Amino acid sequence: MNFTFGDAIEMGDAVNRQFLLAARPQGVVKETDFEYRELSVPTPGEGEVLIKTSHISLDPSMRGQMENRADYVAPLELGDVMRAGGIGTIVASNHSDYAEGAQVSGSFGMQDYAVSDGNTLPFRVFANDVDPTVALGMLGGTGMTAYFGLLDIGEPKAGDVVVISGAAGATGSVAGQIAKIKGCTVFGLAGSDDKCVWLTGTLGFDSAINYKTQDVAAELDRLCPKGIDIYFDNVGGEILDICLARIAMNARIVICGGISRYNATGPLPGPKNYFNLVFRRARMEGFIVIDYAQRFAEATRVMQGWIDAGQLKQQATVIDGFGELPRALIKLFEGYNTGKLMVRTT
Amino acid sequence: MNFTFGDAIEMGDAVNRQFLLAARPQGVVKETDFEYRELSVPTPGEGEVLIKTSHISLDPSMRGQMENRADYVAPLELGDVMRAGGIGTIVASNHSDYAEGAQVSGSFGMQDYAVSDGNTLPFRVFANDVDPTVALGMLGGTGMTAYFGLLDIGEPKAGDVVVISGAAGATGSVAGQIAKIKGCTVFGLAGSDDKCVWLTGTLGFDSAINYKTQDVAAELDRLCPKGIDIYFDNVGGEILDICLARIAMNARIVICGGISRYNATGPLPGPKNYFNLVFRRARMEGFIVIDYAQRFAEATRVMQGWIDAGQLKQQATVIDGFGELPRALIKLFEGYNTGKLMVRTT
Repeated sequence: MNFTFGDAIEMGDAVNRQFLLAARPQGVVKETDFEYRELSVPTPGEGEVLIKTSHISLDPSMRGQMENRADYVAPLELGDVMRAGGIGTIVASNHSDYAEGAQVSGSFGMQDYAVSDGNTLPFRVFANDVDPTVALGMLGGTGMTAYFGLLDIGEPKAGDVVVISGAAGATGSVAGQIAKIKGCTVFGLAGSDDKCVWLTGTLGFDSAINYKTQDVAAELDRLCPKGIDIYFDNVGGEILDICLARIAMNARIVICGGISRYNATGPLPGPKNYFNLVFRRARMEGFIVIDYAQRFAEATRVMQGWIDAGQLKQQATVIDGFGELPRALIKLFEGYNTGKLMVRTT
Repeated sequence: MNFTFGDAIEMGDAVNRQFLLAARPQGVVKETDFEYRELSVPTPGEGEVLIKTSHISLDPSMRGQMENRADYVAPLELGDVMRAGGIGTIVASNHSDYAEGAQVSGSFGMQDYAVSDGNTLPFRVFANDVDPTVALGMLGGTGMTAYFGLLDIGEPKAGDVVVISGAAGATGSVAGQIAKIKGCTVFGLAGSDDKCVWLTGTLGFDSAINYKTQDVAAELDRLCPKGIDIYFDNVGGEILDICLARIAMNARIVICGGISRYNATGPLPGPKNYFNLVFRRARMEGFIVIDYAQRFAEATRVMQGWIDAGQLKQQATVIDGFGELPRALIKLFEGYNTGKLMVRTT
């Protein structure tokens, strides 16, 4: 790693800037886990398009990919371009189905340019008038995760009490709004008063708990005297146990993420209250959004309708500068962002 | 507690022998947690029947009831008759629907006689030619637990790999046989070589692992190279974690019991591998058999068909003598029984 962060890297389009995985993180992600490289811009072959990314997404799952702990994605090897979702524009096309100028999103990696034939590196096409931060946010991977996790795994019914951890994150904030649309009472857990104000004031959550300053168990006892019907978990750890102790009959616990676990070294304790699943006839279920790829168009259509009706909102935390990508990922795990975190590369 | 175990208590039918809850167990159940008492035989009122029990069932869930930890049953107070399932005969009837001589099972408690109007203490009627150890075993609460837990929660498909812990117990042994009937490959975990031989030799399990002498993880790796589709858990603890680490895609983990936990004092660790539910898109679900009471007749009909066809077998460990009830429960937690454990009271 011989790139110094802060160096000027605004060399224009002449090069393809990349961040590679340089080291598997031990504990928290560090800048030295990345290596910066510049290559020449690739040339699309016959049947291929060249995509120039404008925004790159930072997501908690990237931590597991760096470690190669998560076996649900293809292994990321040392020296590989960091995997990351992004959105950009087709700047050259040798494929009759895809026109130059089209806005497309996909797993383009931490780089300026990607080449695709539309299959080996699949992408979604968005109308050019769709805000790229929305396409990458509410309508992107985290929005899809919220949609299918809440609706297909959580199975909300009107009147259900829904608790969401990591509620001010990209996924949690969308899941909570969808639960409201479905007629649920929604409580969010977040890590700052500002985030809590955003959840209740802007997104319509019924209440929010600052888990860093408030007694989560006592607040949940107060807010959910009849128990929790759906717990949408993005964090794991102690909060999962607190919620497990408070589930209602036939509750659904949606295991979406476990950000409290991702930077740990070595094994972590499991949810000691899991046996409440028996007493409460409840289930705890995990899922991965890529399994729902065939239904992304359906979800996008439905969610666009909610956006148009003003029922679904987002906040994007946009950091400027390609060179900020490693630090942006580090900030994600520090709870820096409200809503979707992304880097604008241009 | 002034009853000395081993005292002669064969006083015939003149009295109603009872065991009461004398103390909430600390750690393992002890004989001093029970109090013996003799009352006169109760007289059934108008619309009531008098039942004389012949066999009383010992079940792991009794531990939680004694402690009042499990909130899924009405609290058992100190001085109450110990709750227990049993089977017996209607010896006097003032109810037009129920004839004297009928064989009935229900939660009659640790006593010789119970009075019921058929509603406040519900019971099931079995034909007199049904072996009472079968009515209380395969067709009793543990059989129903196996049936609904495996079929409704586990949702087995032909070809599924099913692993069952506590496989030589009353519930596990039935669940495994039902899985075989459904075309699954079934592996059982049990605590002695004799139990393992019974599982494979008599019940048709594909293989069995003695968890006390064998390396469970290594054996499961060998037996289930493609992972576990259904894990039917009766024990919890380390074995749950070992199985969680080996689940296949879309696996179902049926939390039926956690006998390794029941005698513990203080909180126990949870399943540290729970996050594999995400990687494997799997679910872990609890249930309580009483929720399925409306379908017991259906299950009994189906299971009687399997019994008649020789596809479903049981072994009952029957201990003679009412006074043995406390020691029988202690033995249950020591793994004494193969199949259903009960005390014959007469």
